[in-house]
Amino acid sequence: MKKRVLSGIQPSGSLHIGNYFGMIKRMIEYQESSDLFLFVANLHSLTTLTDKEKMKKLTLDAAIDMLALGINPDKCYFWVQSDVPETAELTWILSCLTPMGLMERAHSFKDKIAKGVQANLGLFNYPVLMTADILINQADFVPVGKDQKQHLEMARDIAIKFNNEFGKTFTIPEPDIPKEIAVIPGTDGQKMSKSYGNTIPIFAPDNVIKKAVMRIVTDSKSVDEAKEPKGNTIYELYKLFTSKPESDKMAEDFKKGKIGYGDAKKKLLKVIIETFKPFKEKREHLANHPKKVETILAKGAKKVREVSHQTMQKVREATGLKY
Amino acid sequence: MKKRVLSGIQPSGSLHIGNYFGMIKRMIEYQESSDLFLFVANLHSLTTLTDKEKMKKLTLDAAIDMLALGINPDKCYFWVQSDVPETAELTWILSCLTPMGLMERAHSFKDKIAKGVQANLGLFNYPVLMTADILINQADFVPVGKDQKQHLEMARDIAIKFNNEFGKTFTIPEPDIPKEIAVIPGTDGQKMSKSYGNTIPIFAPDNVIKKAVMRIVTDSKSVDEAKEPKGNTIYELYKLFTSKPESDKMAEDFKKGKIGYGDAKKKLLKVIIETFKPFKEKREHLANHPKKVETILAKGAKKVREVSHQTMQKVREATGLKY
Repeated sequence: MKKRVLSGIQPSGSLHIGNYFGMIKRMIEYQESSDLFLFVANLHSLTTLTDKEKMKKLTLDAAIDMLALGINPDKCYFWVQSDVPETAELTWILSCLTPMGLMERAHSFKDKIAKGVQANLGLFNYPVLMTADILINQADFVPVGKDQKQHLEMARDIAIKFNNEFGKTFTIPEPDIPKEIAVIPGTDGQKMSKSYGNTIPIFAPDNVIKKAVMRIVTDSKSVDEAKEPKGNTIYELYKLFTSKPESDKMAEDFKKGKIGYGDAKKKLLKVIIETFKPFKEKREHLANHPKKVETILAKGAKKVREVSHQTMQKVREATGLKY
Repeated sequence: MKKRVLSGIQPSGSLHIGNYFGMIKRMIEYQESSDLFLFVANLHSLTTLTDKEKMKKLTLDAAIDMLALGINPDKCYFWVQSDVPETAELTWILSCLTPMGLMERAHSFKDKIAKGVQANLGLFNYPVLMTADILINQADFVPVGKDQKQHLEMARDIAIKFNNEFGKTFTIPEPDIPKEIAVIPGTDGQKMSKSYGNTIPIFAPDNVIKKAVMRIVTDSKSVDEAKEPKGNTIYELYKLFTSKPESDKMAEDFKKGKIGYGDAKKKLLKVIIETFKPFKEKREHLANHPKKVETILAKGAKKVREVSHQTMQKVREATGLKY
């Protein structure tokens, strides 16, 4: 039987190349190799977002983005978190087993407070909702970055505690940490991240993508000087989009002083635009057919609720809430 | 339009005379005068109860008790809390609006910790679940004792905050504090309470009730001595069960030294047993017909979910969770 992999996407606005080669490509791979459970985490967003129209737009956009980039709802479970109220029900039940001490040790909450985010109870309870997301779907693996590692450990602790207290009910999830994490450089050479303002967007108009690519920081070597491709942002990004012979060619040209940064940027821009062109078209089509998207998401919710209902039946039996 | 009154019963085992003349009679009155929303609060119980069989039994017993004592599901909303998962959903949504500071000021959590109850997150979140119970049913009034007053203030704060943030969605609940709170004395003369071990049970076998009544503490005045009825536990309880002429007669007899404590206890026992006889029979009937009880509770859940669905639709619209 295929292993279940679960991941949530925070609907946080326009995706960039870093997201694509980081998270999204991984999801597309999981979709083939595993039973993928992927959801738009709008209940999590609610901890920081109280703008109704923004919430709606970000949620739909996130769904459309993923569908455009290759998530196939027939091959995986794909839904919007708030369409499965059972998750909140499980969150309550799990909270009754979760020691306050465990919660108070959570780094992420402390970090957010330290950054001046207004402390609300949802933010504090966040790891238990995440636990419920995972356990209700009986996930085997959860891809996590460094910042989510502690939360997954909490999910494991809570699952183990529940199973001990009420009998084996939940699969104990394992973290899935990729062997090599490709760090995608942003236009300033640092890791590409929205918070650094160094991103190259996927779905922006061509001229916006062009502007971002042209902004890539290089040294001031002239066209015919020999340049080191390794660590050069243009080359590192180019490699992601091209076959080995093609990227080797650019490396060679840099080394031999046969290409300047300007021309290299143009080459990069061209492959970026070409690569994302079909995704962009699909995105546009979906955005123009919101009913289609709604239908996909409604079907997705129905599909995943068969899993959550099954789990919740077990949970209600185990706890005696089913009287 | 009738006002909505909401109350939850913690399923906590056998009811006593203090419960009856305190909470239960009040509910029966509300059932006539208001739109009563009454539920068995098993999700709240889960904060301290992890014994599956006990949970099931206590939940069913609480439901049967209320039905036997006069709760009429055709005249009110009567259900088991866990049958409305939307309440947990609303709990999550409200938690995202609830400042941590508000939670940390809750006395009841601090008191429980001080008493050595193991601190879990459910216990900490308890006031928000209570808020969701109230707001999802758009209750106008919530009967509260002293210990729940702060929780109701929290519910009001959260409701006001939500309405300000997302537009008028919830009725702001008011506390309903009875003008005179009858303190029902227990067998030792203190307030009747399970924690004092001084209760007279309602549904116990006659000989158990007899034992409890015979245990009532009195002074050592002999039969023919003049005795003060006021503050005399036997007389105070007798008053609750009898008409004024009957209780006046006992007062007179005490004052004139015409009755001893032993005989007075026998009179009291008789009226207790007579009063509860029909309730006891109804209880026995229901306990022997669990299917009947299940049907009543399933119908009750369905009925109240019409109200909760309506509220949740508004809430999902207001927050943008309905995308």
